[in-house]
Amino acid sequence: MQPSIRQVSIALAQANFKVGDIDGNLELISSAIAAAKAKNSPDKALMVVFSELALIGYPPEDLLLRPSLQHRMETALQQVANLSAGITVVVGYPWSEKGQLFNMAGVWQNGEQVAQYAKRCLPNFQVFDEQRYFTAGTETCVFEWQGHQVGLTVCEDIWHEHPVAESKAAGAELLININASPFHSGKLQQRYELLSNHAKRHQLPIVYVNQVGGQDELVFDGASFVVDASGDIFATAAEHESALTLVDFDESLNIQNGQKALAKSELASIYDTLVLGVRDYIEKNRFKGIVLGLSGGIDSALTLAIAVDAIGKDRVEAVMMPFKYTSSMSMEDAKLEADALGVSYKILPIEPMYDAFMLTLEDEFSGLAPDTTEENLQARCRGVMLMAISNKKGFMVLTTGNKSEMAVGYATLYGDMVGGYSALKDVYKILVFKLSRYRNELAASQGEAEIIPERVITRPPSAELAPDQVDEDNLPPYAILDQILEYYIEGDLSVDAIIAKGFASEDVTRVTRLVDLSEYKRRQAPVGVRMTARGFGRDRRYPITNGWKAGS
Amino acid sequence: MQPSIRQVSIALAQANFKVGDIDGNLELISSAIAAAKAKNSPDKALMVVFSELALIGYPPEDLLLRPSLQHRMETALQQVANLSAGITVVVGYPWSEKGQLFNMAGVWQNGEQVAQYAKRCLPNFQVFDEQRYFTAGTETCVFEWQGHQVGLTVCEDIWHEHPVAESKAAGAELLININASPFHSGKLQQRYELLSNHAKRHQLPIVYVNQVGGQDELVFDGASFVVDASGDIFATAAEHESALTLVDFDESLNIQNGQKALAKSELASIYDTLVLGVRDYIEKNRFKGIVLGLSGGIDSALTLAIAVDAIGKDRVEAVMMPFKYTSSMSMEDAKLEADALGVSYKILPIEPMYDAFMLTLEDEFSGLAPDTTEENLQARCRGVMLMAISNKKGFMVLTTGNKSEMAVGYATLYGDMVGGYSALKDVYKILVFKLSRYRNELAASQGEAEIIPERVITRPPSAELAPDQVDEDNLPPYAILDQILEYYIEGDLSVDAIIAKGFASEDVTRVTRLVDLSEYKRRQAPVGVRMTARGFGRDRRYPITNGWKAGS
Repeated sequence: MQPSIRQVSIALAQANFKVGDIDGNLELISSAIAAAKAKNSPDKALMVVFSELALIGYPPEDLLLRPSLQHRMETALQQVANLSAGITVVVGYPWSEKGQLFNMAGVWQNGEQVAQYAKRCLPNFQVFDEQRYFTAGTETCVFEWQGHQVGLTVCEDIWHEHPVAESKAAGAELLININASPFHSGKLQQRYELLSNHAKRHQLPIVYVNQVGGQDELVFDGASFVVDASGDIFATAAEHESALTLVDFDESLNIQNGQKALAKSELASIYDTLVLGVRDYIEKNRFKGIVLGLSGGIDSALTLAIAVDAIGKDRVEAVMMPFKYTSSMSMEDAKLEADALGVSYKILPIEPMYDAFMLTLEDEFSGLAPDTTEENLQARCRGVMLMAISNKKGFMVLTTGNKSEMAVGYATLYGDMVGGYSALKDVYKILVFKLSRYRNELAASQGEAEIIPERVITRPPSAELAPDQVDEDNLPPYAILDQILEYYIEGDLSVDAIIAKGFASEDVTRVTRLVDLSEYKRRQAPVGVRMTARGFGRDRRYPITNGWKAGS
Repeated sequence: MQPSIRQVSIALAQANFKVGDIDGNLELISSAIAAAKAKNSPDKALMVVFSELALIGYPPEDLLLRPSLQHRMETALQQVANLSAGITVVVGYPWSEKGQLFNMAGVWQNGEQVAQYAKRCLPNFQVFDEQRYFTAGTETCVFEWQGHQVGLTVCEDIWHEHPVAESKAAGAELLININASPFHSGKLQQRYELLSNHAKRHQLPIVYVNQVGGQDELVFDGASFVVDASGDIFATAAEHESALTLVDFDESLNIQNGQKALAKSELASIYDTLVLGVRDYIEKNRFKGIVLGLSGGIDSALTLAIAVDAIGKDRVEAVMMPFKYTSSMSMEDAKLEADALGVSYKILPIEPMYDAFMLTLEDEFSGLAPDTTEENLQARCRGVMLMAISNKKGFMVLTTGNKSEMAVGYATLYGDMVGGYSALKDVYKILVFKLSRYRNELAASQGEAEIIPERVITRPPSAELAPDQVDEDNLPPYAILDQILEYYIEGDLSVDAIIAKGFASEDVTRVTRLVDLSEYKRRQAPVGVRMTARGFGRDRRYPITNGWKAGS
């Protein structure tokens, strides 16, 4: 018997799952189902759609290899079945069959599983390692729901043509795509264009549900949406927040209540990603708060603003650790920054321990000229001080370095690189400037005082590790440096190809060589928010021992 | 015309390639070919076989994504062709065709390429990520050589049945298998058994050529060999050394000059792997020498012996950094160890800088009880001191911690964990004791004095960070701890399953929890030699933010 076709509603359940926490994730699923039921009008059939691997969170990494996984999933899916009374639930989970593990999407209805689909396209590039764990599915999945044929796909499937085309060919009138799609700059627009094109080409509305939240280096930005058969984007869930967005469809699967997406500005999107990454790392790992070194420079000023926006001023402590090269301007600015945000602020000079080290090392260093050793020693005295406060108070050290520094190794291992997490690890210096201005403008638009003093943004950056030192003494100007880095790191261009873009040969040679030589530092760096399509985490896997010549 | 069948000789060219250094690797290839020609008797046809991806070294990681790779390979292969005058050369290299990259083995003869084979089985588990880069080949390759049919396979292929069976079915009378097979304990015996079984089952002699040398966390142990059609292992090249082993075959491909393998003892093999890993990291990265902290304990004593065996006593400096909890026994033993090995030895007390930190932090810490903060501070003062010496002298800090400590987090980040490389990172404490005795016995057998004082091996291990502290106050005895760790880390067993093996519930719960909580420390640890089938490097990819409960 063909079921009668009625009006239907689909809830895009965009939740902040925690990797490995199956019980916690089930609670989020249960609450979202209850909330969707409460929001839905009683005359409409309801489907609640969760993201990829929702039950275990994404990416579970080697937890997928634990032998008890399957037993845990069986138990958890029994609960999902119980939750499906009177509605339809779509959820992602890992599932083992005949010794092979699949990245599965399953559909439950009134206590019964009515469909399951194994992800066909398994990404094994950039930050993704799915072929380490999963076997690719081979079948298209279309299930019947309220008289409609609904196709099911998982994340990467949608970035290829055949899973969409084959779903349509198998009769799908609507396609569901569940995701764990991490943010990088420009990604949202890519998703919109991709799905809009699929929808138009196949005259097929698509429901796109994404995870939201931070998980180590990855931030999932949410922004779930629906695209109608003519390719228009509707009913977009908020970026960077948990959300439950109900979309109503008429009997012909036309969207009834959608509104066109209003995406955030690029800078707002980036800034909010940084805040979410920091917040979730702190909260999911249950740190009491954040401590960070405030130098009077722009990186630590922006990092402080992110920290406060992430977890509130009462849980953030800023420490200025002056030395003889610290300018009075830096002292003043650090104080202004801490005061503007209302955080606890301490001044702890490093001269006593620096002198103690140098005195103890006097014989060891005799006859050897001062060099970067003494600069690194300053940075390391600061690192040890922050870590002592961290240990004593249960506050996590938030690292303040940016991507330009991490790229060329202008950062001291065990010095300014100490910390549990890094906000700006994948943010180039030029973007640090832009984000600082953005945050000030945001404050101004809310009638608040300047967060980052103007002269911190405009004066030449300096590590203040030697008299009158400025960064650009040793490096090309950041506007040049960042472009070379982007061509080399994100673009994988050779030295010759970058020079051909119009940069000075000596700059390109020097910068790329510094990048190669600094791999060992990056390997010991804290994790930090991935912001680009090639961050310095799982995105870029370089040997330390490396004889490659960047040249041609 | 069928070529006449003559006696033939195959040179197993076991070389120490450097990742990325194509020119350097070509030089090694050129020298080995010249040496093989010189060693071969003029009446025998010669084939020289190199290891997997020999031209770029293994594992090249993301260097494989660089756009100039293909051009460089084309240039390099022209040189290989030139080197094949009068002989046959088998070599591994990455090769791009129609936008797909293959892990290729090629055969050259008299300037011409006569065969090429794309690896079919691409490992994407443990430390391997080959599916990130390569497309799997689909074809069997059998080429004619001196009237014989010779099959060609690459590394992982041989761990599966079908590439061997299909080579045989395609007419192969001899199978060549080129490898980049890293050492872990027990691996050599696995290789012997595997290839012996293949050979017997298919009545097919197999030539197994492996890379040798250290590349970041991996050590390739060499030990190339030939197995005859009855499954006997012959003509084994040395473990842990570059080697060029010529094997003569008669007209029926019976081995003429083989000798049965004499494998090293398990402890010798492990010890030599550690030495090779350290040596190649130092030499390939061009460090002037090694500096390490000598505590009087067994880990640093063994690490010192490894350092000296790796690069010689004149390039190693040991530093004892006493504090008020350092026993006089430790002071005496550290001196004995340094003297026994003849290395430079310094004593640099940490009291002055420790006191300077504590005084500066007095207000910050007021009202808070002493805890591990003060212990970590001692370790960090030592870390900063070692790094200052490292920076000033160009010596790399060799980290001294072991796998048991790294597992449960009994190590201070930025303290005793500082360093560029770690010798014992994948060596459990019980094995540290065994290796120490092994090294002393080796010295005794060579008529040399004891390297590690007996009481350093027998007295209870202590970090000496608090009065009368011993490790086993806070942890189960190492004999128990190491077993629990092995079940949890290598075996992936749940807490319940480990308890069922007969361990105390509170021990298992506590230890596994410590392992989970310490992931953030391991993420910032230096790379170190992988010794087991699950080291703490690319082998074990765990989330830091992790809600998994180890329980059932």
